[in-house]
Amino acid sequence: MPSLNELSCIEIVQGIAAGTFTAEAVTRDCLERIMARDQTVHAFATVDPEHALAQARALDRGPHRGALQGVPIGVKDVIDTVDLPTEMGSPIYKGNRAACDAACVAVARAAGAVILGKTVTAEFAGMFPGATTNPHNPAHTPGGSSSGSAAAVADLMVPAAFGTQTGGSVLRPAAYCGVVGYKPTFNLINRSGIKFAAESLDTVGVITRTIDDAELVTAAVIGKEPARLTMSSAPRIGLCRTPLWDTAQPETKHAVEDAATRLAAAGAAVREIALPEEFTRLFEASRETINNYERSKSMAGDWASNGERISKVLGDRIKLGMAMRHEDYLAALRLAEDCRAKIEHAFEGLDCMISPCVKGEAPLGLNPTGDPAFQQFWTVLYGPSMSLPTHRGPRGLPVGLQVVARRYDDDRLFACARWIMAKLGLV
Amino acid sequence: MPSLNELSCIEIVQGIAAGTFTAEAVTRDCLERIMARDQTVHAFATVDPEHALAQARALDRGPHRGALQGVPIGVKDVIDTVDLPTEMGSPIYKGNRAACDAACVAVARAAGAVILGKTVTAEFAGMFPGATTNPHNPAHTPGGSSSGSAAAVADLMVPAAFGTQTGGSVLRPAAYCGVVGYKPTFNLINRSGIKFAAESLDTVGVITRTIDDAELVTAAVIGKEPARLTMSSAPRIGLCRTPLWDTAQPETKHAVEDAATRLAAAGAAVREIALPEEFTRLFEASRETINNYERSKSMAGDWASNGERISKVLGDRIKLGMAMRHEDYLAALRLAEDCRAKIEHAFEGLDCMISPCVKGEAPLGLNPTGDPAFQQFWTVLYGPSMSLPTHRGPRGLPVGLQVVARRYDDDRLFACARWIMAKLGLV
Repeated sequence: MPSLNELSCIEIVQGIAAGTFTAEAVTRDCLERIMARDQTVHAFATVDPEHALAQARALDRGPHRGALQGVPIGVKDVIDTVDLPTEMGSPIYKGNRAACDAACVAVARAAGAVILGKTVTAEFAGMFPGATTNPHNPAHTPGGSSSGSAAAVADLMVPAAFGTQTGGSVLRPAAYCGVVGYKPTFNLINRSGIKFAAESLDTVGVITRTIDDAELVTAAVIGKEPARLTMSSAPRIGLCRTPLWDTAQPETKHAVEDAATRLAAAGAAVREIALPEEFTRLFEASRETINNYERSKSMAGDWASNGERISKVLGDRIKLGMAMRHEDYLAALRLAEDCRAKIEHAFEGLDCMISPCVKGEAPLGLNPTGDPAFQQFWTVLYGPSMSLPTHRGPRGLPVGLQVVARRYDDDRLFACARWIMAKLGLV
Repeated sequence: MPSLNELSCIEIVQGIAAGTFTAEAVTRDCLERIMARDQTVHAFATVDPEHALAQARALDRGPHRGALQGVPIGVKDVIDTVDLPTEMGSPIYKGNRAACDAACVAVARAAGAVILGKTVTAEFAGMFPGATTNPHNPAHTPGGSSSGSAAAVADLMVPAAFGTQTGGSVLRPAAYCGVVGYKPTFNLINRSGIKFAAESLDTVGVITRTIDDAELVTAAVIGKEPARLTMSSAPRIGLCRTPLWDTAQPETKHAVEDAATRLAAAGAAVREIALPEEFTRLFEASRETINNYERSKSMAGDWASNGERISKVLGDRIKLGMAMRHEDYLAALRLAEDCRAKIEHAFEGLDCMISPCVKGEAPLGLNPTGDPAFQQFWTVLYGPSMSLPTHRGPRGLPVGLQVVARRYDDDRLFACARWIMAKLGLV
């Protein structure tokens, strides 16, 4: 029998329901893994072992609470928790205590989750990294900004963790760490109690080791039963290289093309998707304009009170945002809305698209946390996106494949992702 | 010369710039008005007179900071402030201190505003009222949930205040109190640092005594120059009774029809706008479905930790939202998005529409705070809306006229509102 920290969320829920083991035993194994490994991985900003065990014991003693009964979950440190500090990856928030749980945490807790600890975030979910290392090789970045959430899941410390994605902060670390990163349709998971980076882009997401687990956690948090759809026939898949294709490294180009070839061989109707001209301007509009403008507002209070304790990389973005002409911001919003309408048309006749997820494998060093371009391209389009751990690069580090679907078509995205992993021989 | 608390924001800015008076003198007159009147009006949850005067003196001593130099502003008590408590109209948050200013507060402060105090909000910006009374008659509700913001502005305690609108929480109290309530295009004012009620609807708005002041404050907060547009010719105005028309009281029907008649006589091209059938379901979809579902998530943390201290009226909504089927929520979101697309067509060939704002004058008693239907109908459509103090009801209490424009057409809304007030002989 494996250590309980290696189990999936679904295995944990089933094992506890069957009386095979207790929530306390699961939590204890996760804590032991953290104790053994976190000096190297630095996935957690805060863990309170006694409090985690107390939560688990209360679950074991009490009635069944819900679909996440006994599942230990890590929470990115920009997401409020009532019982643990929320420090934002910034010295400004050292010891900061939120007045109540963020929505996603409260609902997960009410469904039986054990909130195991807070995971390291890049400063304010931006680009200035924390101490987390890549579990596959500590000399490499785990990606960011949900660095600790991805590393903790990849390193078997927790089966699931919450992250947030403004550019690529869920999918990129998931891809670099070789796990499943899922960014739902914009606003599907309520954002109350998260520190905004850029509020028209920020999305709460989930990092897990299996597709089914990502669906289980998300379904519990939004208040539905998991749809657990599978494809009744081979899917129609768009191959979308995006206008950023030429910036991808060979391992990413290989991952996308290899997947396309093998999925077509498995019966999928795969066709190349060319996007209209506006999409060439979309990444810059979202990264440089929407992001910087909204950042300068979301950080205005911290900037005024504690500007000297904000990193230069973030401070520079705040200053750019403050100086931005409002009409340029509105023009970027309009471009984004125009592209959102056009991507609906591009999805006609398709079940999903596959696309590059990261430029290549995780770069050497902890700073920077990698390039968000391919993830951000899809974030701004508001549909669901997922990173699947399908390929490896020249150094043996993971390279994800991005699968995307149309807005609100999250159930179908899960079905396509299952089909893709099966046909690539990975489940 | 009037007391300085009676001045508009623009008059304050100009007077300080000209050296006619100081920011300290303005703040002092506002504080004196509050001391004299707030035992009756109960507009403020927290005022710290010494701290307010210290802010004003610092402005008088320092360099010019920006477009709101010396303007005292009230802040609804669901909006975070670093230097005053944020108590949410709930005993749960008694003495609660936010880690930093909300975006709108921080940017206003950086532009020279004096944050004068926190204004009373209905519990968590919902329907359970605070102690605020209507300045026109203390036996009547001031409306809600931005009760204190509207009452403080109407009673000459501050020239401007921030509110939030999920259903009708800016326009309704503004209409009942006889002042200007402006809800910008959804998301125009950044929402970082506000307690969400229903995050796909919550909008930060501004309450003032003049149209120009609403534009001044908003422009400063979003980082632009006020457009100060006027109509170069008579506007094309849609008369939109909405599917809720039959629920309006005679004074509201009179206000809308009288305005339409007189504006047409003044040269406006006024035509009746009939909306497609879907719009008959829009109010219920937003009020009962979107609102309750999102409320149950935004309040999940407070509900779990302090449910027994939440009012029955709010608790019932949380419970309804928790029990709601997710597919019903998604269907309501889709209906709302469909109506948003269709209202763009309805605006074709129009500069703005006029519509009922409140059912009638402010009801007797402080609970409930009035009916949000006519305001919520437009909130969910995401365009800018404004309440103008144009008419009075049978008891002599104010009845507003609602003016609305298409999404992002806020500058034109201001221009139309100026034209309307001028032609109704009110400026």
